[in-house]
Amino acid sequence: MQTKILLSEDRIPKQWYNIIPDMPGPLAPVINPRTLKPVTPEDMLAIFPMALIEQEMSPQRWIEIPDEVREIYKLWRPSPLYRAHRLEQVLGTPARIFYKYEGVSPAGSHKPNTAIPQAYYNKLAGTKRIATETGAGQWGSSIALACQMFGLECTVYMVKVSFGQKPYRKSMMQLWGAEVLASPSDRTTAGRAILARDPDNQGSLGIAISEAVEDAASRADTCYALGSVLNHVCMHQTIIGMEAKEQLALVGDYPEVVIGCHGGGSNFAGIAFPFVADKAAGREVRILAMEPASCPTLTKGVYAFDFGDTAQMAPISKMYTLGHDFMPPGIHAGGLRYHGASPLVSQLVNAGVVEARAVAQNTCFEAAVTFSRAEGIIPAPESSHAIRGAIDEALRAREEGKAKTILFCLSGHGHVDMAAYDAYFSGKLEDFEYPEAAIRESLSHLPKVEI
Amino acid sequence: MQTKILLSEDRIPKQWYNIIPDMPGPLAPVINPRTLKPVTPEDMLAIFPMALIEQEMSPQRWIEIPDEVREIYKLWRPSPLYRAHRLEQVLGTPARIFYKYEGVSPAGSHKPNTAIPQAYYNKLAGTKRIATETGAGQWGSSIALACQMFGLECTVYMVKVSFGQKPYRKSMMQLWGAEVLASPSDRTTAGRAILARDPDNQGSLGIAISEAVEDAASRADTCYALGSVLNHVCMHQTIIGMEAKEQLALVGDYPEVVIGCHGGGSNFAGIAFPFVADKAAGREVRILAMEPASCPTLTKGVYAFDFGDTAQMAPISKMYTLGHDFMPPGIHAGGLRYHGASPLVSQLVNAGVVEARAVAQNTCFEAAVTFSRAEGIIPAPESSHAIRGAIDEALRAREEGKAKTILFCLSGHGHVDMAAYDAYFSGKLEDFEYPEAAIRESLSHLPKVEI
Repeated sequence: MQTKILLSEDRIPKQWYNIIPDMPGPLAPVINPRTLKPVTPEDMLAIFPMALIEQEMSPQRWIEIPDEVREIYKLWRPSPLYRAHRLEQVLGTPARIFYKYEGVSPAGSHKPNTAIPQAYYNKLAGTKRIATETGAGQWGSSIALACQMFGLECTVYMVKVSFGQKPYRKSMMQLWGAEVLASPSDRTTAGRAILARDPDNQGSLGIAISEAVEDAASRADTCYALGSVLNHVCMHQTIIGMEAKEQLALVGDYPEVVIGCHGGGSNFAGIAFPFVADKAAGREVRILAMEPASCPTLTKGVYAFDFGDTAQMAPISKMYTLGHDFMPPGIHAGGLRYHGASPLVSQLVNAGVVEARAVAQNTCFEAAVTFSRAEGIIPAPESSHAIRGAIDEALRAREEGKAKTILFCLSGHGHVDMAAYDAYFSGKLEDFEYPEAAIRESLSHLPKVEI
Repeated sequence: MQTKILLSEDRIPKQWYNIIPDMPGPLAPVINPRTLKPVTPEDMLAIFPMALIEQEMSPQRWIEIPDEVREIYKLWRPSPLYRAHRLEQVLGTPARIFYKYEGVSPAGSHKPNTAIPQAYYNKLAGTKRIATETGAGQWGSSIALACQMFGLECTVYMVKVSFGQKPYRKSMMQLWGAEVLASPSDRTTAGRAILARDPDNQGSLGIAISEAVEDAASRADTCYALGSVLNHVCMHQTIIGMEAKEQLALVGDYPEVVIGCHGGGSNFAGIAFPFVADKAAGREVRILAMEPASCPTLTKGVYAFDFGDTAQMAPISKMYTLGHDFMPPGIHAGGLRYHGASPLVSQLVNAGVVEARAVAQNTCFEAAVTFSRAEGIIPAPESSHAIRGAIDEALRAREEGKAKTILFCLSGHGHVDMAAYDAYFSGKLEDFEYPEAAIRESLSHLPKVEI
């Protein structure tokens, strides 16, 4: 039985897939938080190099991947597609379960897929230093790696709760030469303001973004880099889904359902967008985003204009949001603790192209343990949400006696997240109740944008 | 430029290579510690299944790999062979550096290569439970994984210093269903005796082996499993070198020097033995074992009969040894803290077929950082010894202006060992002096074996 479906290095895609021309309707404009008018490329030049700004807004369906980027992709790509024979057997399901494993990158997750081109385009534009934020540390370690490879300096504002929970990811960033600060920090005006009000603040992605954006905007040699949410970031990840589609074709298969976990949207977009394209062209395929019940952006948020960050410095986008000052509980899947979502994914959810489901963290760890005992690989807590979705689909297939094909993205390994598994096994992992009051409160602070 | 040389699953070797018929001279007998007479298969049946005992002594050059084992190998094998283009560039060397990367296994090291067949043969023989020891946790996590896959119970005695330093590997074992005890423990007579003399004893592989062997010998449903040293363990690892040779042949290359780190000898044997076979057949190739200066078995030990464990319960083998009661300092490469060595590797070193070098841990971490910043992958501290060897060879090639080919085994990743990197960066990593007095003392306690 074939377990891994591999592609040789020359099959690394030569172009990224840009979904913008295939979206159901025009994109909402991105709004400048100071002027409340649509952002111009000039606005964005303060923190991004022009090449990435162009990608953010490009109407071209295919964007060339530079050779320098593909050379570094070769360190781990194409990533393997696995057929989960042993998991299928444990579940007693007639479904065929495939997973695209992105944990083979040096940082252990899908994030280097975009970190490498972002560092490359910055290097090309003369940027000397990158400032960024990180949640669980998967993005921070990936951009640290990318900056090391292109000789850029790197400062990472790391959400304080993860700084404590995930010391190993912090060490990885330092090994790759980055400076790592616990956020909120005293390095920025935004950080100091929050610490003045709440010295024990445990941080959030929103706060860390505020700090990194402020840092980048205040230094001419520094640009900002974001690991998710933005259009160009989602686009860089589409190589996941493109490779997966080619690998499935090698075994004559195509998925009935494609599943990814959803935080800011990048690994989800990576596995999903190439299939959204097929769906737009009339092919039947379900596409499912799995998010944490404690930060249920797509399922309990509103589709509205909101700030990308807590301090209201980042652009305002139309997206599903729980409100920019919503503070999610300290769940272990730190990479999914974001109040907002990718505007592209949001629009697809709003249009009914993509389904979304929220799941509690204990049921995700339960799925991860089942997976790991069958397949060996230990999943990152974030990825466990996708596994939960895949197992639920497989169990449904068993009930229905249907041999359907399930594809999910295993976005990273959990070797650096074992403390979360310890907490799960010792029963210390809380299933936070749906934070209804907090969401209602934060949703009352949305900016008033009139287009 | 080709970076990874991949093989498809059907190229997983169908046979292990047993070096015994190709050794330079007959093997020394293994001695029963109680009778001081050569061990019989019946002696070994108390703790091993017959299939593994047969493999331990087999005169057959090739041993079939069962299909059930190859099916599980497919979860990560064949492992990739990398050409270290970026490292070569950083070093400015004309050498071609290749590394065989075993960190792609679910446990993150080469150890599952032998854990899987050991669990398989035990299952076949009706064993219900495995008792074993682990140093850094790479073996313990691998046997836990293997027992999980074949439905066996598993108890791991983990060297206490690593139990504290490497909590994540302990959690991995628990995730895969194993019971983990800090050794010395109060579960065994051997452990209790040591704790009575020295309640703060930090443990050693020798002590942990004593506990696991006692556990297995005292329960009819339990067998013992060893992750290194023994002939059959070394043999299971030879798939590393066999795959590497095939991968190099695909790019028309063959190494001038083959390098592995050396603790008990298993990853070293894995990469080296298939090339030792070539050397025995007249081909020119250097083979180099890299060991820690703080536990310099091959370079500062004596080639003599000694107990495999501290409590003198394990068989007596002829090997390089620092004395069975030598207590190595608490270096971070826990997997290399063993007083003895594989008898096969020892005989090859003694015969001049294999070279050995000892290196201090700070210079190994320095090499690991250089490697990681060039190639991305973060090496396990054990593997960093092989990198040190490879970099030294590459720098020598630069001095000599020689474009030689270097092959080394990158036996595992270091994502679970980031605390050791923290210690290195903060200057807290000691380069222990060569523990001459301690070695002289422990070498005065060797058993007197007369054959």
